[in-house]
Amino acid sequence: MFMHVQRLINEIVPDEPDPAAANALQEGLGGQFGEMRTMMQYLFQSFNFRGNGQAKPYRDLLYGVGTEEISHVELIATTIARLVDGSPRYQGSSTAPLDEPAAGGATPLSTALSNGNIHHFLVGAQGAMPVDAVGNPWSGSYVYNSGNLVLDLLYNLMLESTGRLQKCRIYEMTANKTARSTVSYLIVRDQAHENVYAKALESLGVDWGKVLPIPKTKAERYPEVKTLLDQGLGEKQYLFSADNLSEAGKILQGASAFKDGTTLSTDMGRPEGVPLETAPERPEEFAPGLDEALLQLIQATSEQELKTSG
Amino acid sequence: MFMHVQRLINEIVPDEPDPAAANALQEGLGGQFGEMRTMMQYLFQSFNFRGNGQAKPYRDLLYGVGTEEISHVELIATTIARLVDGSPRYQGSSTAPLDEPAAGGATPLSTALSNGNIHHFLVGAQGAMPVDAVGNPWSGSYVYNSGNLVLDLLYNLMLESTGRLQKCRIYEMTANKTARSTVSYLIVRDQAHENVYAKALESLGVDWGKVLPIPKTKAERYPEVKTLLDQGLGEKQYLFSADNLSEAGKILQGASAFKDGTTLSTDMGRPEGVPLETAPERPEEFAPGLDEALLQLIQATSEQELKTSG
Amino acid sequence: MFMHVQRLINEIVPDEPDPAAANALQEGLGGQFGEMRTMMQYLFQSFNFRGNGQAKPYRDLLYGVGTEEISHVELIATTIARLVDGSPRYQGSSTAPLDEPAAGGATPLSTALSNGNIHHFLVGAQGAMPVDAVGNPWSGSYVYNSGNLVLDLLYNLMLESTGRLQKCRIYEMTANKTARSTVSYLIVRDQAHENVYAKALESLGVDWGKVLPIPKTKAERYPEVKTLLDQGLGEKQYLFSADNLSEAGKILQGASAFKDGTTLSTDMGRPEGVPLETAPERPEEFAPGLDEALLQLIQATSEQELKTSG
Amino acid sequence: MFMHVQRLINEIVPDEPDPAAANALQEGLGGQFGEMRTMMQYLFQSFNFRGNGQAKPYRDLLYGVGTEEISHVELIATTIARLVDGSPRYQGSSTAPLDEPAAGGATPLSTALSNGNIHHFLVGAQGAMPVDAVGNPWSGSYVYNSGNLVLDLLYNLMLESTGRLQKCRIYEMTANKTARSTVSYLIVRDQAHENVYAKALESLGVDWGKVLPIPKTKAERYPEVKTLLDQGLGEKQYLFSADNLSEAGKILQGASAFKDGTTLSTDMGRPEGVPLETAPERPEEFAPGLDEALLQLIQATSEQELKTSG
Amino acid sequence: MFMHVQRLINEIVPDEPDPAAANALQEGLGGQFGEMRTMMQYLFQSFNFRGNGQAKPYRDLLYGVGTEEISHVELIATTIARLVDGSPRYQGSSTAPLDEPAAGGATPLSTALSNGNIHHFLVGAQGAMPVDAVGNPWSGSYVYNSGNLVLDLLYNLMLESTGRLQKCRIYEMTANKTARSTVSYLIVRDQAHENVYAKALESLGVDWGKVLPIPKTKAERYPEVKTLLDQGLGEKQYLFSADNLSEAGKILQGASAFKDGTTLSTDMGRPEGVPLETAPERPEEFAPGLDEALLQLIQATSEQELKTSG
Amino acid sequence: MFMHVQRLINEIVPDEPDPAAANALQEGLGGQFGEMRTMMQYLFQSFNFRGNGQAKPYRDLLYGVGTEEISHVELIATTIARLVDGSPRYQGSSTAPLDEPAAGGATPLSTALSNGNIHHFLVGAQGAMPVDAVGNPWSGSYVYNSGNLVLDLLYNLMLESTGRLQKCRIYEMTANKTARSTVSYLIVRDQAHENVYAKALESLGVDWGKVLPIPKTKAERYPEVKTLLDQGLGEKQYLFSADNLSEAGKILQGASAFKDGTTLSTDMGRPEGVPLETAPERPEEFAPGLDEALLQLIQATSEQELKTSG
Repeated sequence: MFMHVQRLINEIVPDEPDPAAANALQEGLGGQFGEMRTMMQYLFQSFNFRGNGQAKPYRDLLYGVGTEEISHVELIATTIARLVDGSPRYQGSSTAPLDEPAAGGATPLSTALSNGNIHHFLVGAQGAMPVDAVGNPWSGSYVYNSGNLVLDLLYNLMLESTGRLQKCRIYEMTANKTARSTVSYLIVRDQAHENVYAKALESLGVDWGKVLPIPKTKAERYPEVKTLLDQGLGEKQYLFSADNLSEAGKILQGASAFKDGTTLSTDMGRPEGVPLETAPERPEEFAPGLDEALLQLIQATSEQELKTSG
Repeated sequence: MFMHVQRLINEIVPDEPDPAAANALQEGLGGQFGEMRTMMQYLFQSFNFRGNGQAKPYRDLLYGVGTEEISHVELIATTIARLVDGSPRYQGSSTAPLDEPAAGGATPLSTALSNGNIHHFLVGAQGAMPVDAVGNPWSGSYVYNSGNLVLDLLYNLMLESTGRLQKCRIYEMTANKTARSTVSYLIVRDQAHENVYAKALESLGVDWGKVLPIPKTKAERYPEVKTLLDQGLGEKQYLFSADNLSEAGKILQGASAFKDGTTLSTDMGRPEGVPLETAPERPEEFAPGLDEALLQLIQATSEQELKTSG
Repeated sequence: MFMHVQRLINEIVPDEPDPAAANALQEGLGGQFGEMRTMMQYLFQSFNFRGNGQAKPYRDLLYGVGTEEISHVELIATTIARLVDGSPRYQGSSTAPLDEPAAGGATPLSTALSNGNIHHFLVGAQGAMPVDAVGNPWSGSYVYNSGNLVLDLLYNLMLESTGRLQKCRIYEMTANKTARSTVSYLIVRDQAHENVYAKALESLGVDWGKVLPIPKTKAERYPEVKTLLDQGLGEKQYLFSADNLSEAGKILQGASAFKDGTTLSTDMGRPEGVPLETAPERPEEFAPGLDEALLQLIQATSEQELKTSG
Repeated sequence: MFMHVQRLINEIVPDEPDPAAANALQEGLGGQFGEMRTMMQYLFQSFNFRGNGQAKPYRDLLYGVGTEEISHVELIATTIARLVDGSPRYQGSSTAPLDEPAAGGATPLSTALSNGNIHHFLVGAQGAMPVDAVGNPWSGSYVYNSGNLVLDLLYNLMLESTGRLQKCRIYEMTANKTARSTVSYLIVRDQAHENVYAKALESLGVDWGKVLPIPKTKAERYPEVKTLLDQGLGEKQYLFSADNLSEAGKILQGASAFKDGTTLSTDMGRPEGVPLETAPERPEEFAPGLDEALLQLIQATSEQELKTSG
Repeated sequence: MFMHVQRLINEIVPDEPDPAAANALQEGLGGQFGEMRTMMQYLFQSFNFRGNGQAKPYRDLLYGVGTEEISHVELIATTIARLVDGSPRYQGSSTAPLDEPAAGGATPLSTALSNGNIHHFLVGAQGAMPVDAVGNPWSGSYVYNSGNLVLDLLYNLMLESTGRLQKCRIYEMTANKTARSTVSYLIVRDQAHENVYAKALESLGVDWGKVLPIPKTKAERYPEVKTLLDQGLGEKQYLFSADNLSEAGKILQGASAFKDGTTLSTDMGRPEGVPLETAPERPEEFAPGLDEALLQLIQATSEQELKTSG
Repeated sequence: MFMHVQRLINEIVPDEPDPAAANALQEGLGGQFGEMRTMMQYLFQSFNFRGNGQAKPYRDLLYGVGTEEISHVELIATTIARLVDGSPRYQGSSTAPLDEPAAGGATPLSTALSNGNIHHFLVGAQGAMPVDAVGNPWSGSYVYNSGNLVLDLLYNLMLESTGRLQKCRIYEMTANKTARSTVSYLIVRDQAHENVYAKALESLGVDWGKVLPIPKTKAERYPEVKTLLDQGLGEKQYLFSADNLSEAGKILQGASAFKDGTTLSTDMGRPEGVPLETAPERPEEFAPGLDEALLQLIQATSEQELKTSG
């Protein structure tokens, strides 16, 4: 079973809207090597896990990283929504009546024709979508789960490395601070996951020499990444275990598989995070599309609830 | 953020393996109206939610049901895995050496050629997959999130009704107890979700008359369903809120939108559930594929961990 | 603009239900060379047609055959529905209350697990679907419309020949009379369309020698086909032109391009056809899913209508 | 059976070519909530319809709206073709010899690299395609046909509302008059269809209160829409019934389900419409690609036809 | 550039037709981890290869294995064709006239409705198709080519291991000798390729310990595999280099990366192979569909050629 | 079996990078009518070929053209890679340390957000991909292989004509010399293949009159095309037969099927071609991603190899 906490796993730095950057980030959300894929892959590997008690730490590792990935999906989807939100710079006021848009034939959404993914404005209401950066919908065929533990771990290591490679490339595509704050966070967490899967394979006898992490980067080139690494975020795996039953810590301790002098550690819980915020109305998208009459009904329902429970 | 609890949301009744029933259940997992879709649809609607404070109960409703759906994905995936597991009735012993399969040219997996989905045996290792009952992979194009609150709620009501319709049809396809125990549980929970979305639309002024729930069924025809309804499981919505901040309860109380004399209620937490279990090795699938040498390495890692933490 | 007539283009011979035959016919409906494809391809070629007045007969040819194909989609979809309908041989009575299915845990739909396409029973309610014989959904990528008239005609000739080839193979897969009556009719009409496109290319200078029609068949081997050919159905093209403005007849007359001694002719209208019939309720599918209360409402609406118009 | 009339269902206002606007309109043609989908969904629901005579008005409603949608596909495809047509502003004359394009290495189609969908110029010949606004081909998986009448009607209501929502957004993306004339017409017709499905559900007992139509718009903000509504086009359903056998009128009369004071009515026939026009040649696309020799052959065929029929 | 030799890379052992086994082998041809994928992945990695002269041996390794994979596609496609060929056990004689099939209403292809993939008989003419074992067409999205050499090699190692895992599972699904002869050959070659990629990563510093090969198998359990391994086929990489310019040998020599006592070696050329054979006519499939008249034309062409060249 | 020669089939003329032109060329590589499709279609038609010895020249024709297409895939993929390569005009030096990219927060890849296909920079490392010009991955469903020889030849003729049509359109989209040199070469070779398939159908009795080639072009309008035609490249078919066993020459000789006064001929071998070159490193893509430590390991491996073989 899973529980929800009304906090984002990391803070999103505010900046101007940028639908093209938002579109690049879609690869990190709905792409073949994005967060929806890591999430689903690790959860399926957990659900279908085979092996006796000795193997339980490996299953719990998959459950722990898989649960973290759901929060990554939440983080990057919210980041994309913020980057798209308001990008048409609609001139009306959000307190104006619902059908202000297109009043008298204005064209408030014209930006959608030539920036990023037109579906962000046409199908969604300036929000994130389960697609990649060229608009391909996420596919269940991405999920790899051979059932062979060594192969699954090897794939996962490659998957995290590819995810991190792509995020480094996204970092080099945009200087938008909203985009970079989330991309940098995910670069660091992907590095931690590379570490985790490399360590698990080390426990089965592989010596990685000097090839990890992939790609090779010097953190000081990416200021936001360096800040997070200095906080130790690249060497620690939260297990998101609400009942403290995860045994993943058994195989995730000691010297890092990267042989860079750091030490891997685990935490049964979760990071502190920041509160969730609610996005504003967008009348030009008819979202949420509640006019005066409907809002009054909501108000009435709410008041009755207070009386009932009072 | 999300947390994991090592408990299944409902018990799975044991019965004989049945790969054809497992395949039918795949529709409920990876089909267009299955649990992966409800999960992803409600989570995206939550991430992209728009509206001021008055609308927060609607967002929290989406987060609450969305989080429950992750546990449904876990439940039905595990059920499918149990239905496929061991269906080839491999004659060897699971304690035999790893390459016992196909010893001298035997054909232990021949059943895969004519029962259910061959990928259950060939691509996966007798486990669940993110596909539907004819093998189409789950697609991100299934997710509906218009950003218009009324439309999203209307779609969700239709989605839950269709999910329940399909599960009633699956119930009529197989008498396998493992399959029916999970299908019946999901029929009841889909009914509760129909109730939840119908109630939310009622709060915006719709009067459903006598059309709900869809499909119309008499519970006593489905004994497993009746048992769960008698426990009140069709009228209660758990919110899976680890920090007790959900406000969904404000709109989910009072008389059911079905006008059947029942009363809708919410619970901030989760059901008790049952412990997760680990599936056995399947040498004929090379899963988990750990031979003697690798098992010794795992053992060594584990012992060192005891010393280190000791 | 298009109009509808409540008549089927050809009669469907009754026989036993046969879901496996129904599934084979799906290729002729939703397959890459099926009726949905010919319909959409010719309609898009019509909508996008280029050329001055001299070329209008070619456009009208495309519109005429395209309109006929909509009626073929109607015919083969209805045939599939009849082949699937009742195939579970549900023991209950269609006049029984709505939730008779699965009464006390019966399994009326078990046949769906091992015959034809399980979606016919699980997603649809024993009806036709826009998919091919292995369950792939129809795709817009099938539509060929290069805009080059010669290429489009060449493709269309090849398309009709392939459609006819596949239907000959379906004929050889099943002896069910319902299936064969529609397959035979479409074999003959595909042959007429081969004739039409070959003739159009002949008007541009091609001499087909002895290669047409493809495939080569002797009609007397297929008794149902022979009957239809003897009625002249292979040499006549209806234009389905409600306003008698089609000019396709200008290029579709004279000796057949097959050089078989026959003469091609056109008819501005449509065949006589047979009346449409309505399929019975299927309670085990919850279709149409109207219980007593809803049926009374319909009855009331109907009576009020009589009064109002009376 | 279906018949064709050589008239467009509504007039297309001329304006400059605009490939980006054309691409936005593709969503309304080949998108998940576009006209190809409504057309196919209602036709499949008609073909597979179940129920006794009492239910026939509902089937005829589906046939009537479904037939109208074929004409909508024709209208929006033609509109897209006109928006793309000539957008490269090819400098040659359409009376020039066929291979004028690229003479001496010119680049007449360079606009295709950066405006709209490159396939409009590369795969098609400046015409419409069965794809959405990001290039995904239309898919048969879009068609919803559960066989449960209430669910099918509920889905159709949601589908029309979503289609209208997306067209309102497209209206706000472009001020091109060609695009807006068709988009506005479809906004009004989608509203009429919302009305039709809402009324059908009202006949089964649902009271919609104030939630419809979705989205809420004030018509005077969209001048083209207002003009059409003032003509009563939002309250009338043509049945496109060539043999006058449709019974849909029985359930589509009386006060609108929107409770806006209007009255719903039906017409057994079709709107008057405007004549179809033929698009000009585009030599840079080799469309239709008939050189002098081939045109002479066509001329010869035509003359012979006159003699033969004379 | 590439050249063709009219020889198969390995002999196919004759046995009875078996369409279900053929379908399982489709996974090895057109599946996500099949031969079409390895072929395309290595060729794209070769075409896009980056790096100075030092890196050329790695590019040549990719070209060499990629070229071998084209021959594997040829081998497994031919094997599938032989397994499907004649499976309907058509009673006629292949020398009978072309339209013997279905004479008088016989059903020679009825087997297609319930064995393997119906498309083998309906779309193809008892031949192989570019699809997997559940009918999904091969997709370009399978090809992995990050451009990062270490990642590409890591993926390739995992890919070969997964391919071998799946082929071991196919071996366990069928005892048909035709199927097993090709599956066994590919198991051995996949093992050689695992060796090759592991060795390339070893040259970059990785020590694989005891985890390879994956899966762990004892060769004597698979008699056909053992025979091939005893011939040294698991330790040798042919480079298929027609101009002897491949430098892959520089990194593919010395002790195997598996540490099993074997030595890796390369050969600039190709194995000897066996002659290609031509499949017989299948009149019930209208393949090749040449009637007496067409055969006479071919004969005439051939005779004229003799005169001309004589 | 297939062999590789380290030579490109035609020279690629150098010019500036141009990611938009590269994207247009993707249609010619991975589009529905591109080189991957012709390659796979002809190879599958070869593998599945049916017919006795008389038909062998037709099979060898398919093998010969199919093998040439692999070299076309190599040519156009390499051309695309060169057009994308360096298009971000990264300011650093390729000899700089590996993580120069994004140093201090620079954005070297920003061009990727608005030119061509973002995946060229984000998923690939400025290389070619198996997708079309709108990003759809290549699909196995493109391959047409009915098994009926006449139909297959007819399709192939149409396929080559469509490929040539699309390449003429690409020629008109860009003046980039790199793009045009390859596009022109492929226009000429597609014309040769049209000739080949038209001739094969002529041998079965078809007289093409004046309709071929399609599209009609005057070569002098395309200077690069004219140069190649003047060299006779449009009338000659190389057979790429390493063992000189191809019999395709029997049906590919004599007057061209185009009736343009030219004579068709065959050559058992291959064109001379030009040497393959290796692309430079791209540090901003982490490709090949070898840092100093890994390069030293490669160097060491190479030196040891010299000693060993010395």
